[in-house]
Amino acid sequence: MQKLRIFVDFAMSADVLKVLRTGTKGNQLVFPEKPAASVLAKVERDPQFATVNVAFGQPDPAAVAEAGQLKWIHVSSSGITRYDTPEFRTLIAQRGIVVSNSASVYNEACAAHALSFMLAQARQLPLALKTRTADGTSAWHAVRGACRTLRGETVLIVGYGAIGKRLAELLRPFHMKVIAYRRKPRGDERVPVITEGQLAHTLANEADHIVDILPESAETRHFFDTARFTTVKPGAIFYNIGRGTTVDQDALLDALRSGRIAAAWLDVTDPEPLPDDHPLGAEPNCFVTPHVAGGHADEAKTLVRHFLKNLKRFVRGTPLLDRVM
Amino acid sequence: MQKLRIFVDFAMSADVLKVLRTGTKGNQLVFPEKPAASVLAKVERDPQFATVNVAFGQPDPAAVAEAGQLKWIHVSSSGITRYDTPEFRTLIAQRGIVVSNSASVYNEACAAHALSFMLAQARQLPLALKTRTADGTSAWHAVRGACRTLRGETVLIVGYGAIGKRLAELLRPFHMKVIAYRRKPRGDERVPVITEGQLAHTLANEADHIVDILPESAETRHFFDTARFTTVKPGAIFYNIGRGTTVDQDALLDALRSGRIAAAWLDVTDPEPLPDDHPLGAEPNCFVTPHVAGGHADEAKTLVRHFLKNLKRFVRGTPLLDRVM
Repeated sequence: MQKLRIFVDFAMSADVLKVLRTGTKGNQLVFPEKPAASVLAKVERDPQFATVNVAFGQPDPAAVAEAGQLKWIHVSSSGITRYDTPEFRTLIAQRGIVVSNSASVYNEACAAHALSFMLAQARQLPLALKTRTADGTSAWHAVRGACRTLRGETVLIVGYGAIGKRLAELLRPFHMKVIAYRRKPRGDERVPVITEGQLAHTLANEADHIVDILPESAETRHFFDTARFTTVKPGAIFYNIGRGTTVDQDALLDALRSGRIAAAWLDVTDPEPLPDDHPLGAEPNCFVTPHVAGGHADEAKTLVRHFLKNLKRFVRGTPLLDRVM
Repeated sequence: MQKLRIFVDFAMSADVLKVLRTGTKGNQLVFPEKPAASVLAKVERDPQFATVNVAFGQPDPAAVAEAGQLKWIHVSSSGITRYDTPEFRTLIAQRGIVVSNSASVYNEACAAHALSFMLAQARQLPLALKTRTADGTSAWHAVRGACRTLRGETVLIVGYGAIGKRLAELLRPFHMKVIAYRRKPRGDERVPVITEGQLAHTLANEADHIVDILPESAETRHFFDTARFTTVKPGAIFYNIGRGTTVDQDALLDALRSGRIAAAWLDVTDPEPLPDDHPLGAEPNCFVTPHVAGGHADEAKTLVRHFLKNLKRFVRGTPLLDRVM
């Protein structure tokens, strides 16, 4: 077996590094002088990158052109926006570079995060946690009467990939109607699927809950715009655990202010974080978490183990898990 | 069919009252001069009560002795504490009065509320919703690293009745280990059941999540006391959607302060609400909602419909739903 030079651009704890070293034994790990700040952040250009065969992390797309020996990039996030350009796709096609991502690592956490949003809204947690009152008071009736169970309601999952599928599994005991929107249905969805032609009708008449799990791309930019937000079923709840750029935030703000959208729960925004004076931050029914939906205990270890599984496949020449390009 | 005089002690909206009037046609509804403040609150003594055959709400146990024609009490809550005394049980046995409650009305909401607590904790929502920061910062790593998925963790449901069963159903897709504690297992639990003898061991070694759904009684008073809280698995999370009196709150406070219990989520306390200066209110990892777990849209209508189903059974002489005495 040829010894591989593997570029790993993010910092990790000693015990995770040990897992990585053990799993890559016989190959050579190459670390940048300055690791990336997180598994979502781009690393600074590093001269060693030109000589590596494998990159694990978020390598600079521009640097890839100069890395003549590079054959495989394993992206440390689920999103692959910085690689999803015609120029990059042309380059890797010419060079025979394959790209996989870490979607499997984050599915479970992202689906749980989406459900935590849905239940926090249904059980009115933001209001309930700050309401200290006796039963029977008007403040109590206001909280209790606004609580819901989700039973009988309809959720539309917009962007039905691995996260959406897992969310549908978590929702199965709730007696909800789950509908998936997918540009190109594959037939393996296990829930009713709609495509572009039915989307407006479903949004206007059916969806009590709209879960945006769209990836970032030129096509998904401002997918949720004024036209969509002004025609949703009145009182719908909007959730975003996809990417911030898929939402026209001014349109969302208008929809919240008019009450057309009753509440929005966003793990992603554009930019991240929102500026301190951004009006969405002051909107009482807008709840924002700082892009943590994929987070979970031992995340770095899971990430490394996923990479190591794929490394075995890469060495053997079998198809990669989560191959995206 | 004999015309029944039905005492209904809580106020309801016009449309709910219409459902009640339609469903009780041919009988006579009797309302107190001053209705109770909520479906949990006791009504003031009303002279008409002495002449009724059926009571729907929270009638004063002392008034029952004077109601010579009373044959059935349908309690509007799940809890029946104010009736659960030896004197009251003796009285209704002598008089042949049956008592049913509204447990079925609140199961779905209570189970959803418990899961909303578990997921809000797992996804660190209280912290995440107030953290506005870029990925890669130490504040971001603190939130993201503390997030969990629940997968592989163990939950102990203490008091496994209809709510616990429903919670176990909602948890089924999560790949958790669900254990039920029940004083007297019935064999229909569908999850592993432990009894008193195994409780200390399970709390000390297995339960990452302890969900208290115990009813209030002399036997459950301070069920969770210093002895139990000081021997739980370190870092366990405690949830209470049963009754506040089942917890020694001083012991819980100590357990939170020592970190033995990592966080507590309480829908019920003793008293309700907690006084403004109660130390649990200032504890950073203690989260309290104001006894709203059973709340849901159309709650009053569901409550009335459940009563009407039971009224049919009462008239026909078939066994009542949710009969508790």
